[in-house]
Amino acid sequence: MMYITRRERFNAAHRLFREEYSDERNLEVFGKCSNPKWHGHNYELFVTVKGKINPDTGFVINLKTLSKLINTKIIDKIDHKNTNLEVDFMKDKMASTEVLAKSIFEELETEILNLGAQLHCIKLCETENNFVEYYGNINE
Amino acid sequence: MMYITRRERFNAAHRLFREEYSDERNLEVFGKCSNPKWHGHNYELFVTVKGKINPDTGFVINLKTLSKLINTKIIDKIDHKNTNLEVDFMKDKMASTEVLAKSIFEELETEILNLGAQLHCIKLCETENNFVEYYGNINE
Amino acid sequence: MMYITRRERFNAAHRLFREEYSDERNLEVFGKCSNPKWHGHNYELFVTVKGKINPDTGFVINLKTLSKLINTKIIDKIDHKNTNLEVDFMKDKMASTEVLAKSIFEELETEILNLGAQLHCIKLCETENNFVEYYGNINE
Amino acid sequence: MMYITRRERFNAAHRLFREEYSDERNLEVFGKCSNPKWHGHNYELFVTVKGKINPDTGFVINLKTLSKLINTKIIDKIDHKNTNLEVDFMKDKMASTEVLAKSIFEELETEILNLGAQLHCIKLCETENNFVEYYGNINE
Amino acid sequence: MMYITRRERFNAAHRLFREEYSDERNLEVFGKCSNPKWHGHNYELFVTVKGKINPDTGFVINLKTLSKLINTKIIDKIDHKNTNLEVDFMKDKMASTEVLAKSIFEELETEILNLGAQLHCIKLCETENNFVEYYGNINE
Amino acid sequence: MMYITRRERFNAAHRLFREEYSDERNLEVFGKCSNPKWHGHNYELFVTVKGKINPDTGFVINLKTLSKLINTKIIDKIDHKNTNLEVDFMKDKMASTEVLAKSIFEELETEILNLGAQLHCIKLCETENNFVEYYGNINE
Repeated sequence: MMYITRRERFNAAHRLFREEYSDERNLEVFGKCSNPKWHGHNYELFVTVKGKINPDTGFVINLKTLSKLINTKIIDKIDHKNTNLEVDFMKDKMASTEVLAKSIFEELETEILNLGAQLHCIKLCETENNFVEYYGNINE
Repeated sequence: MMYITRRERFNAAHRLFREEYSDERNLEVFGKCSNPKWHGHNYELFVTVKGKINPDTGFVINLKTLSKLINTKIIDKIDHKNTNLEVDFMKDKMASTEVLAKSIFEELETEILNLGAQLHCIKLCETENNFVEYYGNINE
Repeated sequence: MMYITRRERFNAAHRLFREEYSDERNLEVFGKCSNPKWHGHNYELFVTVKGKINPDTGFVINLKTLSKLINTKIIDKIDHKNTNLEVDFMKDKMASTEVLAKSIFEELETEILNLGAQLHCIKLCETENNFVEYYGNINE
Repeated sequence: MMYITRRERFNAAHRLFREEYSDERNLEVFGKCSNPKWHGHNYELFVTVKGKINPDTGFVINLKTLSKLINTKIIDKIDHKNTNLEVDFMKDKMASTEVLAKSIFEELETEILNLGAQLHCIKLCETENNFVEYYGNINE
Repeated sequence: MMYITRRERFNAAHRLFREEYSDERNLEVFGKCSNPKWHGHNYELFVTVKGKINPDTGFVINLKTLSKLINTKIIDKIDHKNTNLEVDFMKDKMASTEVLAKSIFEELETEILNLGAQLHCIKLCETENNFVEYYGNINE
Repeated sequence: MMYITRRERFNAAHRLFREEYSDERNLEVFGKCSNPKWHGHNYELFVTVKGKINPDTGFVINLKTLSKLINTKIIDKIDHKNTNLEVDFMKDKMASTEVLAKSIFEELETEILNLGAQLHCIKLCETENNFVEYYGNINE
């Protein structure tokens, strides 16, 4: 098994909050991330795929194909958008990095299987100090 | 003359647009940065100060004092905020990186003189591919 | 299972040596890291925690709480200190990156359980070319 | 078990192609990486070794010894070379990042066992957006 | 005056040598960079433009326009190419970083004037340890 | 004029203090940097040289020669050392980043003239958030 990773980037606005909470309660639970007028980030997305090396090409997967898939399914929908308001696969979800990474995993999992490889991990960096990694349900 | 630089960071939402333009016109001029529901960035701010080395301390300026000043005057006002709507020193201005850098320069210039040094440059990075530098009006 | 990582940094002095060795023997075994008058590093510490996403918050763990814990238990004790002489959890230990990472793991393991999550990995970078990762005793 | 990683770097030229394909077919399959007059990269190589901490030294492995081994067996043979034409361990192989990482693993595996540790992973970065990781045959 | 910088990247093969020198002489003068079978790099190109802020847009220059210009005039011609053999603006020149930076400056200078701004600096990074900066002939 | 920069790195221990001050006074002026038992850093040193391009080589200066000079005159004396106690060119000076950069400039200035180029700038990074730049006395 070989693991290959493609990095893509997007810039988005978001807010962490629960509608049923007051602004004070949201501030208490989510801190300054609950600002009602939004804030945003430069996100770095690392998509790791595993598979066998194709002896004809030396590739696990053609990275141009993988990059195009990530752009069509994820980046085009979320780059320069508001994660809470405008992204179909985030509808009615908390806009946390954890939930975002899990949702991206679920968007890409079957699509990558269709390309003959297996999605291994979604790593999503929100700042230089904070990132999450999600490997799917398989080992839970 | 010695130049010393302090890096600080902030995450903010913004939008590039003119109110008198239609959404179509804004899209034409500002591209996806005109998204009416906002997007955001992790900004990196580099504040460069120049001065002579104080022989008693070996310092041009105490970096803890400089950092505190940048946080009080800039970071506390803009971090996790909406640059268009919530930042006093950006009121009624375009929320571009250029205007933001110039405004930060103007906020800090006199304050740094009061600390006995001179503000040399504000460098502001919006993404890993885009940044601006502003050196004030002096040499124009 | 979701994995979330917080980066913190500290600057410390240290020396690799054994008291029962001569300076020559220490130099032979530990190279220039054995310098009796110390040297130092900017360490980067990555603390990775695993757990389930809390559906109310979208969080595995509140990163502000995690950061505060790491600062109280580790950074405040080691930042701008001498690892060999001043850090309680390094007393009578070799000040290598490996031993330091293992000791940080042991300091944080129970504390993170008390926050309702599980410490997964301590990654400690000594330079841009050298780092270690420790996952605890569980799988040994 | 402790994991320790050493980064080394090399700059090399290469080309992705199959001799039996026409230039058009190579372009179709490998894109601009098939350029017959070559292109090149700054590669970053991360060699991760696992083992127990030696209580005398605090080391899993002496990083100076590991670095010397990587340089003798890999870097000296590939740095400032053409991967397709000049590297013995790449002879008659596709010069893809995947095949390169696997070949480096095979070159180092036994040598690191001889140093008393175990090669865990070869990570090879071709650009800031693309990298591969190979853990050997053990778990396949 | 405001300075704005756009980063672009390209991967290319090259060789440092003089045709009239023997291989031994080339090795003596240019070291391993003279390898007759080529080597290559991931180059980072920083294009810095200066100008006044347009009050209508808040921009010195539209970065999308600048990026498109750099790609058309430079990146499309040099990315995944051999700098010595395939790049029109490098014909009959030494393929050093210095000469490459100067040539890129000369390719872009008039084009950027036509966009209403002024090319200030070309910074070209060959490795993480080596880079050059060229500001044109103006101050010589 | 072309500017070329070489990066080198060193790891050193140091302390900011004045002998005639009490520990309390040192703590007040220099903060945790005054710790009597030392702390340390991974320093990044950028040496920028200016000159004309040699038409025979395409070089301003041979970077291998420059790197060797920096290593002989600076790195070999300061790497894995204590800046306050063991570095000849820092004797009886404050071990601040400012003083260190100025001292490195003075050590290299004549030596680089002897190589046929001119030292333009010493940039010295102490942490990812703090760095200084020194251009010599010429424009003061």
